[in-house]
This record gives sequence, C-alpha cells and structure tokens, in this order.
Amino acid sequence: MNYCSHCGAPVHLRIPPGDSLPRHVCDACGTIHYLNPKLVIGCIAEWEERILLCRRAIEPRHGYWTLPAGFMENEETTGQAAARETLEEACARVEIGSLFAVVNVPHINQVHLFYLGKLVDGRHSPGEESLETALLQESDIPWHDLAFRSVRFALERYYADKREGHFRLHSLDLPPPPADYL
Amino acid sequence: MNYCSHCGAPVHLRIPPGDSLPRHVCDACGTIHYLNPKLVIGCIAEWEERILLCRRAIEPRHGYWTLPAGFMENEETTGQAAARETLEEACARVEIGSLFAVVNVPHINQVHLFYLGKLVDGRHSPGEESLETALLQESDIPWHDLAFRSVRFALERYYADKREGHFRLHSLDLPPPPADYL
Ligand SMILES: [Zn+2]
Ligand SMILES: [Zn+2]
Repeated sequence: MNYCSHCGAPVHLRIPPGDSLPRHVCDACGTIHYLNPKLVIGCIAEWEERILLCRRAIEPRHGYWTLPAGFMENEETTGQAAARETLEEACARVEIGSLFAVVNVPHINQVHLFYLGKLVDGRHSPGEESLETALLQESDIPWHDLAFRSVRFALERYYADKREGHFRLHSLDLPPPPADYL
Repeated sequence: MNYCSHCGAPVHLRIPPGDSLPRHVCDACGTIHYLNPKLVIGCIAEWEERILLCRRAIEPRHGYWTLPAGFMENEETTGQAAARETLEEACARVEIGSLFAVVNVPHINQVHLFYLGKLVDGRHSPGEESLETALLQESDIPWHDLAFRSVRFALERYYADKREGHFRLHSLDLPPPPADYL
C-alpha cells in the first residue's frame, strides 16, 4: 500500500497513538488503513460415496487438485461463499452442511474454512478456473497432486471421521511451507 | 475506495473480464481491488464457573457489555487473535480452547468467531477500550445490556451447552438489525 484509497495522498507506515503495530496512515485525511486476513471458503461436496475435486486452471498450483474454494466476498455468508465457489469452479449445485475444518495460514494472512456439503443432483463440469472436475472415491484421491496443505488436511480428516462414523470440527495452524507449497 | 492504493490514480467501479461483480479497477496500473469480509475474533474465557465480560469504552455500543473480541490482524492465527483481544481489552491471560460459535454478519461484511478459553490466573482489569471488566456467573449476565447479537448468541448457546454437559460448534447467520443493534 503506497497511497490512501480515500484521498489519494501518499501513506506512511507508523504506529498510531494507542496502537501497538505500524499501520498505513494518511496524514492528508487522517485515515488509518488496516490490513486484515482474508477468508478462503471451500466445500467437501458429497455424491454417492464420492466427493468433488477440481484441477486448477490458474496459479498458484496450476494443474494440481483442490476442493472447490475461494475468497469470501462482501455481502455473503460463509455458507453462501462455499456454495458459490462450488458453482463457479465446478458448475455444481451443493447444499451446504456443517463447518468441518478451520485452517490458519498466517504467513499468507489467510484463514481457510471447509464446509461439508451434498451435491443436489450430482452434476459437475469445469468452471473458468478449473481444467477438469471429478467425483472421486477415497482410493482415487490424487494425494500426491493436491494443491494445498489445507485441502490435504481437510480430506485426511474427512476420511478418518467417515471411518469413525461421525464428523466433527477440525482445526490446524499451518507453519510456513518448505517450498512453493501453500 | 476512490484511489488506487498501489499507484494513487483514481479507480472506477467496473466488472472485470471473467468476473461477475463490480470491482474497484485501476486503469493506470491495472490493479483490481477486491473488498473482503473481516474476521472478528472473540473469547468466552472461564474462571471458576464464571466468564469474563467487558463494558465497552468505545463506539459502537459504548457502555454495553461484550465478550472480549476484535478484528483479526495479519500474521496471526484465529486462536492468537482471541488471546490478544482478551489481553488488550481485559488485561487477562487466557488459554484458548476450541471454536464455539461462527456468526455471519453479512450486512456489515463481518464473520465473528468465538473460542472457548480458560483464564490462566483469574486476573483481569479494563484495557484502553473497556470501561470495566467482570467475571460473572450466569445469573449476573446483563442480558439487556449486551453490545452485539453475536455475543448474545454465543452466551445463550454457551449456557445451554453447559447444562447439557458438552460444548459443540454453533453457527448463525444474522439478518440486518432492527435499529443500531449490530
Ligand atoms: Zn487520505
Ligand atoms: Zn493503480
């Protein structure tokens, strides 16, 4: 951030009075610009003992497999975001269930939420950001070609809970990755 | 948003190619500025059958009671945010437990998360944003003077679960409020 989005003047990094961290402060109009983490919302969408995965057509992790997920937008709920991303990335209609996983990714200022869901009619096809979509059973999950650690975590916990016979909420705080693996 | 925070040129509201919603677009440098919901993270901090509440010294809802909570910062986890807010607003050290409530507040582009927690030593005192702090038992909760609907929801579910003997995750989507009640 270099300029004030309110008045267009240059901003400066400075600790405001009563605060403890440096903020982007505009001396022209007095606005303090805070930077906050973004929510990424995804869905484990089930259909007849299989779940819906998408192969990414965009960076980062082009060509790798992921659960349908993306940045939450203003003026929607977390559940609506999960359903919208599933529709956008996999052209699939889903009924959103309970929250299943919360994954903190503080080194990139993101919090990932994954909801359980059920496909309405089992139909799916790649949206603009996907190369292909697939309904996969556990033995067909491409464990070595998953796009993100948060997706791996959600899938591992999903199948573990499925074997135990009940789903509960799972949480994880991710450290910075070894390489380009988010 | 009136100006590009990257280059300082005026931005225009327009639907970018491949997108479906209007965004603040900078024609000078090409940056598309997305607006995303903010996370507000709070804590139900227990100490000897009582929980910690704060009376707000700031707007909105000056003078009303709330759970310690505030905007999540970059480079921290949701649990760290809950502990930091409890320290800042109530000068209380807390060990964060499991996620207890997720409340969507889409009309103000917020998602509120409340964690369960246990005070480390029972000490508390008002921070800069609090008029007073108190450890209260259920019969002393100021139900008619709570600051936010999400706080009321979290407290109601907390005592309901406590009576049932186990805590589980609760979710709520809030509609726009009747008056100035957030
Ligand atoms: Zn300014
Ligand atoms: Zn620009």
